[in-house]
Amino acid sequence: MHIKKQRLLTPGPTPLYPPALHAMMASDIHHRTEDFRKAYRSCLADLKEVMGTSHDVLLFAASGTGAMDATISNLFSKGDKVVVCSAGKFGERWAEIAKAYGLDANVLTVPYGQVVQPGQVEEALARDPAIKGVFVQASETSTGAAHDVEAMGRAVSKTGAILVVDAITGLGTMPLDIDGWGLDVLIGGSQKAFMIPPGLTFLSISPKAWKLTETATLPHYYFNLKKEKKSGEAGESSWTPATSLILALAESLRYIKQLGMSKLVENAQLLAQATRAAALRMGLELFAPGSPAASATAVKAPAGMDSGIIVKEFKSRFGAVIANGQGSMKGQIFRIAHLGYFDFADLFAVIAGLEIILNANGFPVKYGTGVAAVEEIYERAAVKPQPVHA
Amino acid sequence: MHIKKQRLLTPGPTPLYPPALHAMMASDIHHRTEDFRKAYRSCLADLKEVMGTSHDVLLFAASGTGAMDATISNLFSKGDKVVVCSAGKFGERWAEIAKAYGLDANVLTVPYGQVVQPGQVEEALARDPAIKGVFVQASETSTGAAHDVEAMGRAVSKTGAILVVDAITGLGTMPLDIDGWGLDVLIGGSQKAFMIPPGLTFLSISPKAWKLTETATLPHYYFNLKKEKKSGEAGESSWTPATSLILALAESLRYIKQLGMSKLVENAQLLAQATRAAALRMGLELFAPGSPAASATAVKAPAGMDSGIIVKEFKSRFGAVIANGQGSMKGQIFRIAHLGYFDFADLFAVIAGLEIILNANGFPVKYGTGVAAVEEIYERAAVKPQPVHA
Repeated sequence: MHIKKQRLLTPGPTPLYPPALHAMMASDIHHRTEDFRKAYRSCLADLKEVMGTSHDVLLFAASGTGAMDATISNLFSKGDKVVVCSAGKFGERWAEIAKAYGLDANVLTVPYGQVVQPGQVEEALARDPAIKGVFVQASETSTGAAHDVEAMGRAVSKTGAILVVDAITGLGTMPLDIDGWGLDVLIGGSQKAFMIPPGLTFLSISPKAWKLTETATLPHYYFNLKKEKKSGEAGESSWTPATSLILALAESLRYIKQLGMSKLVENAQLLAQATRAAALRMGLELFAPGSPAASATAVKAPAGMDSGIIVKEFKSRFGAVIANGQGSMKGQIFRIAHLGYFDFADLFAVIAGLEIILNANGFPVKYGTGVAAVEEIYERAAVKPQPVHA
Repeated sequence: MHIKKQRLLTPGPTPLYPPALHAMMASDIHHRTEDFRKAYRSCLADLKEVMGTSHDVLLFAASGTGAMDATISNLFSKGDKVVVCSAGKFGERWAEIAKAYGLDANVLTVPYGQVVQPGQVEEALARDPAIKGVFVQASETSTGAAHDVEAMGRAVSKTGAILVVDAITGLGTMPLDIDGWGLDVLIGGSQKAFMIPPGLTFLSISPKAWKLTETATLPHYYFNLKKEKKSGEAGESSWTPATSLILALAESLRYIKQLGMSKLVENAQLLAQATRAAALRMGLELFAPGSPAASATAVKAPAGMDSGIIVKEFKSRFGAVIANGQGSMKGQIFRIAHLGYFDFADLFAVIAGLEIILNANGFPVKYGTGVAAVEEIYERAAVKPQPVHA
């Protein structure tokens, strides 16, 4: 048996930033001390900075679904009319949460691989001026498709509704002008472009969204936006925070600030572009060619081949974990991630591995074909040599 | 300046078990893989084993307050009648959550430092047979007092109500016979006796408590007990789990199993006993002498001395973080923790440090007085020499 390094190449959890991981070793810290408040404050301030927003930013000890729940349970009331854009598993989650809390949701559903058009949202809003909120994924990770949240923001901001964006995989992989585009609530997660393990979620909240808390009546306790805002201003969290992850986040945000958020986004976009080029060059088909996201590229398995074989062989041959399709897409597609601490050298290896696996399973690809496509994008992008860890 | 090691000696977060901390470095793992399911399953099985229960055990990525919220939002309906035992800050939290969800709560309040008597609960239940739940802290960490949950369990199990026990600091510091005493829901947290950082909470749920889910109507989504039970049976969590903390928990549970849960409890109880003896020998007064908890001992500052001075000097002289009183108890008491990865050598140092700080602030104590009391308990308990890390 030869050496097989473990490589986590999924759209979340993503490859970890080592100094952030090591920072967790200093977790023998108490959360009601000035030492910890310093780290907590720096996380809140740096998140605000890299998200490029003037809105309040809050943090919770929970996974991303927790912030999705918090948005609905804090800003809405039973029976409120909302619009849900559903283009995949995560859009379906918005619909589920709306249902769990008794909202009256108009679910705009499109087939997997496609996206809801801004015009559809505009029409739905025009038909019913009572609509209080629109829910969407910036990047629908299950299909590798991206919504046009800029146009949606423009449409929603003209109405009384707020736009709630699950940007858990969108943040750090696509430009998101929170204030400029009218993205009233924008949700992120630690285990995505932020390069640390899961367990933290954060969100930005616009003044228009805050206004809804004055009339919202759904009950909630653990997820309390108003209380968390007050705690955050004192450099604390309302309940015991996930200290180890806060220390990790403070470290990864330092790196992201050095790198520049726009460079982080460009990194994901170049890798996505290179992956699409490689897939097409190898004769594969993309699952969401019309509006590809840069968080992950979903590729169709060749006709007659179960995508699970590709996933399994990445693990058995190269110790690498890539993602299968979810739900009904399982077996049909596989997903290569680009978000977080992921670089061109990772992608060279992934595409070379893919060439080997395809060949071994009866889909002939001339060795080097896909990798060459990646190398060409690398060269064209003129990625400059730079120090490791910034 | 001399060396001052950082020492976290608070009742949570508690001193960390190093191998568990190091296990977090392997967080480049995906949560929908067999490798991770193995760790998740072992956490669920080992929790069940060390908690000594046949009830279902569920895990959430959240701090302990999340599981408190989950219990109310999943098992009750608006207007349900409940009894809350309030003997400190955490009892007040039960009352707050009940209020947030619109329950009709009869709050049995006793002064800080005292505990609600089982007879009071019995009377309240006898007066109103419609009561559906009783909420209590096994150990009220804010005052260092312990409730008699055994007697409460006996009383509540004769009625239609369930007993919900916040054992976040009670678990691992006092005997808790979940099945035998009728503790229908019992809540724990990662950052207490389990010796790892905060961010995970878990709870056991009896068949009697599960029955309430059939009629409960409060809305919830992130905290969904039924969904989480189903996910847990498949070795997964419903949402992305806090992988780094799961790996740490798997490791600390291995240690706790080797040690034996009863030994972990005895450890805390010996340290608590020794701390009380030392405090009294030095001429200090205990804050909850009637029903002291073994999670933490609350000691009154000497007359005329602010307890904040003691907390501050522990930090400035010895790099050690001990806990002040919370709320109105701030300045009046200080708290020495005993739970988790805490041993006699830690306590020798804490009591010696306390002797020095008291002397330096005008409360004369003959050096060695308190430490001798601890040494005597150590000798009497005949703690056997044993290998480090089991």
